[in-house]
Formats: sequence, C-alpha cells, structure tokens
Amino acid sequence: MTEPRIWTAALIIIGDEILSGRTQDRNIAQIALWLNVQGIRLKEVRVVPDEQDAIVEAVNALRVRHNYLFTTGGIGPTHDDITVDAMAAALGLQVVVHPRAKAALEHYYASRGGMNEQRLRMARVPEGADLIENRQSGAPGIRVGNIFMMAGVPHIMAEMLDALTGELDGGRPLLSETVGCWVPESEIADILAETERAHEGCQIGSYPFFREGRVGANFVVRSTDPSVLNACITDLTGRLKAKGLEVAMGEI
Amino acid sequence: MTEPRIWTAALIIIGDEILSGRTQDRNIAQIALWLNVQGIRLKEVRVVPDEQDAIVEAVNALRVRHNYLFTTGGIGPTHDDITVDAMAAALGLQVVVHPRAKAALEHYYASRGGMNEQRLRMARVPEGADLIENRQSGAPGIRVGNIFMMAGVPHIMAEMLDALTGELDGGRPLLSETVGCWVPESEIADILAETERAHEGCQIGSYPFFREGRVGANFVVRSTDPSVLNACITDLTGRLKAKGLEVAMGEI
Repeated sequence: MTEPRIWTAALIIIGDEILSGRTQDRNIAQIALWLNVQGIRLKEVRVVPDEQDAIVEAVNALRVRHNYLFTTGGIGPTHDDITVDAMAAALGLQVVVHPRAKAALEHYYASRGGMNEQRLRMARVPEGADLIENRQSGAPGIRVGNIFMMAGVPHIMAEMLDALTGELDGGRPLLSETVGCWVPESEIADILAETERAHEGCQIGSYPFFREGRVGANFVVRSTDPSVLNACITDLTGRLKAKGLEVAMGEI
Repeated sequence: MTEPRIWTAALIIIGDEILSGRTQDRNIAQIALWLNVQGIRLKEVRVVPDEQDAIVEAVNALRVRHNYLFTTGGIGPTHDDITVDAMAAALGLQVVVHPRAKAALEHYYASRGGMNEQRLRMARVPEGADLIENRQSGAPGIRVGNIFMMAGVPHIMAEMLDALTGELDGGRPLLSETVGCWVPESEIADILAETERAHEGCQIGSYPFFREGRVGANFVVRSTDPSVLNACITDLTGRLKAKGLEVAMGEI
C-alpha cells in the first residue's frame, strides 16, 4: 500500500493588531478547520508586523515549502495595508490594477460615495493574479500561484474561504475523535504513548484541564483513515477502562 | 535626543492542537499585552507542530534576532511534550533533572498518587536552566539564557508571566489611544496617512468593522511617548471633525 499523499499549507497573519495584543486572533482556528475539510494540513503559522521586510521574508520562506500559502490582513485601503506591495516584492512582480477588481469596487461604491484613490488601492494586485470573490464588500481577495491573500476581518475572510471551498487539490481529510477522562494526564501518560505506537498513522494529543476542582484531560486521536482511527480509539478506551477509569466518548 | 532603545521578543507556540483548529489560541494576545507593559515589543509569532525539527528551526531563527524568546506548550508529562528535548537539541545542551523542580513535583504529587516516571519528565530541563515558578501545579516553566519556556494552558501560562513580571529588562511601555468613527475607512484613508506622517514616533492602525447595519472603524494610535501620542490623537480627531465626522474618544 502506498502512503497517501499529504498536502500542506502555511499561513501568514499580517497585523500589528495581533502582535500588540489589541485583537484576539480568530483566523488561525477558522482556516485550520477549513483546511482539514479540504484534505490539507496547516503546518506552520507566522504572525508578522505590517512591515514589508518581515512579510517578504515570511512569504519567501513558506511559499516553496508547502503546497499552499495563505495570508490574512493588509489588503484594505489604508496606509498600513501593504500586503500586495510586499507580496509583489517577494515574488519579483509588478503591481497592476486588476480590471475586474476595479469594476467590482466601482459598482460597490457607486451608491456609497463613489470611487477615490484610496478605494482604488484595493484593486491593485501582483501582475497575473486572479481574484477571490467576496460578497461582503467590494474588495476581493487575491490569488497568485499557490498563494492566497485574504482579508483580516474574520467574517470577510470566511467569505473568501467559502469561495475557495472545493477549488483546491487536497488529500484525505484529517479525522479526529476525542475521549475524555477525569484523570491527571501524568497518571496515564505511558498508556497514551504505548497506544500511539501500536497504531501507525494515528496521533494522540493530550489536553489537560482543571475544572470543578478536579483535573482531567481530553485525548484527541487523529488519522486520515477512519478504520485506523476507530481501532485506536477502541484500544485507548479499553486500556483506560482496564485501569479502572471512566471514559467519556467525546470531549468533556 | 537619542532614540530610546527598543526591546523585542518573539513567541513560538508549540502545539498540534492550534494547527488542527481544535483549540482557539489565547496565549498570543495575553503575552503581547503583558510584554507591552514590560516595555518589550512582540515582533513575531510562529505556531509550529509538536515536531522536533520544526521547533529547533524556529528556536534557532528567533533566539538570536530578539532580546527574548518565549515558547508555550509541550512541557507536560505526555509523549507529545517534547519542548525540553527540542530546546536542548537547538542549543546543543544536555537534558538534566533539575533538583528543585524534582523536589517541587515530589511535594505536589505526595498527596496526589506519588511520583512516577512520567511526572518526573516535568523536572527535566536543558542544563544550566533556571525555573519559572508556577503556583497552579507542580510543573515549573523553564528559563535558559534569553529563552522562556512556558505552559500552553492559558491560566497556567498566566501564572508564569506573573512570576516574570518586573524581572526582564525593557524599554518604555508602548502606549495606545483609540478613537472611533462611523465612517468607511476608505473615505478617510488619506487623513490617517497624513496624520501618521506628521507625528514621528507614532503609528496609526485602522480597524474597520460592520455592525448594526453600518460600517465604522477604530483608529489606534501607538507611541512610547505620551506627549507625542496626545498630540497625534488631538490632530487626528481635529482632522476627522473638520470632515464633518463625529469622533468617539475610545473604541466603538
């Protein structure tokens, strides 16, 4: 049996507002969950400031290492929106006005005060780029090669993911099942390690918590193969019960 | 006048649970806000999987580039907790059992089932490391040189930050003030750019939103100098009002 091909992606979050702590990021989890469904694994995330050098470095490090590179943030109309220019610099491309983006913006702003120089900024793309549709506002996302530039505002970003759903080649979706136990993870750490070793193609993550005055942990088993996943969950549950523990199917 | 020295930090979030989308990160914002108060700027964040090569690469890229490097995650007792080993590999150090960490864990677990091999894992540190106190659980954080390894669970991580408060050299805290306006940012983007240019040592970030059927934006001005910050906010408010806009002091 040949190993199924694994498709990977990286994400660059461009935004001083995340690095300053002003804004709580909500894009990483949203993109990660969406990628899982597309059969693509998120392997690395970088958060960088609104500075061209930092963006260029991250883009050039990550675009060749993964099948896909996503960015969020910095594609709006203001002076701190420099993603398009930084991307063009990283790729050695010119920045051009995309006619369809310009038309979409003109249409959107016709009833909203008309176009101006700042709004036209949102039609600028690296040459050769395609657009990613966005029904929420006039400003599209941008695709150039294996790179996808999306909005930083989570609900607009979600629209762009929606437009990309099913468009990207990927492998088998990563599946996961969780069992929970009111036990300190340090008491059953050997069981977790042994179970993981016994089931190739599975990973077990252990996520401890403290709640209602007691410690517990959730154990997340991940695999792309549903039968392997099932066997691993059954085995893990059996071993925990053999220790006299109560095991909840699903997260506690 | 000499420029005040700027202290910078990077953060590595170690955790498959963030990359899989299972867990919504809450550490970036928490650490960023804490660093601001210490007079240290968070300049880069990387999220990497629980894989030694990925951790080593990120550590070695970031530890020399910034005054401080923080990590979260992977210091517990289970098989997927590999931060200490990866860090030791990155730094070319041996892993040793820290006597004070061992004593603290023995004390903590005396009434909780006693020590075992897995629990002893949490006393392992790169040689020469110091501990970061943690009153929540027996397991300490670890400091080695300019690197701080902390827990991934947010409330335990917060305890470790608390133990480090005031311990790190830093510069002037980064201050920020926000004004809000019910206006599309694309309508006043030129004002933002001009105001930023007119006040050296200030940055203006623009954060648009859509709420109650209307668009608006918050403008966050950041500076380490309170008088520069004040002048910039006054100027920005004046320019927005001159456009006929209502300006709210503080975030809307």
